[in-house]
Amino acid sequence: MMIREATGADWPRVWPFMREIVAAGETYTYPRDLGEERAREMWMLAAPGRTVVAVGDDGAILGTAKMNPNHMGGSSHIASASFMVDARHAGHGTGRALGEHVLEWARGEGYRAMQFNAVVESNTRAVGLWRSLGFAVMTTLPEGFLHPTLGYVGLHIMYRAL
Amino acid sequence: MMIREATGADWPRVWPFMREIVAAGETYTYPRDLGEERAREMWMLAAPGRTVVAVGDDGAILGTAKMNPNHMGGSSHIASASFMVDARHAGHGTGRALGEHVLEWARGEGYRAMQFNAVVESNTRAVGLWRSLGFAVMTTLPEGFLHPTLGYVGLHIMYRAL
Repeated sequence: MMIREATGADWPRVWPFMREIVAAGETYTYPRDLGEERAREMWMLAAPGRTVVAVGDDGAILGTAKMNPNHMGGSSHIASASFMVDARHAGHGTGRALGEHVLEWARGEGYRAMQFNAVVESNTRAVGLWRSLGFAVMTTLPEGFLHPTLGYVGLHIMYRAL
Repeated sequence: MMIREATGADWPRVWPFMREIVAAGETYTYPRDLGEERAREMWMLAAPGRTVVAVGDDGAILGTAKMNPNHMGGSSHIASASFMVDARHAGHGTGRALGEHVLEWARGEGYRAMQFNAVVESNTRAVGLWRSLGFAVMTTLPEGFLHPTLGYVGLHIMYRAL
């Protein structure tokens, strides 16, 4: 697997699994009927943000991450990031590799911390992965997320210093 | 004092005190050199957001608030809001009146909670006001805000159910 900058040519291979993840409505605070144009604007970031893809040895796109400042002004030293892994390629370390990559990027860019604003409590795989990468659940907004089958669940804010 | 919808005609009377507050860099996570055009885009919201002004008995604009969804999709039931009070009119209950107003608005719109994403820990007047209006400090991001004279201080995330 290699992680490299995403290009416009990658988007048609990113959107199909991103659309599936967003339409499921279980892990992202995006509208489930998010359209392709808006999705592309939200995901494919220009500087100071950045978007990467994880590419398998066979050339398949396994997943993608975007990273960006999380605040402006006096809090512009806090970064954020978001991740999508193709369900057909899950469980092979793509999420972890992308997580390590964005932490390295943020350190290199001089950020002092990374904050995830909205991690769905029931997305235990993601929560466990971020914990293993040094993130702490700073708080859980009670009933912060309406899950399509579980009903209201908590919404974690996760954070780690860099 | 009355609180009413902000109109384009109000902006030239809002921007002078907003510019002062932003340039001071003590309470808002906005760039201190924020330009007027960008400030207007960020502050004067169209639906589903909304912006109001508090007007004194003599017609002076005492302060302003904007209110908006804080998340999308499964967390779109959480609202947020921001406030600016003209320093020349501080201490007369304008902040409290605006705070009560946005809570009423959010309830009326069907939101279930209100979240403030970035309340500077050293802004004790604001923190005390929001506490008195039922908000709790859910967590404090350590060294989350670089204050121009105090150095790094914490950044509160405040929240209340509606």
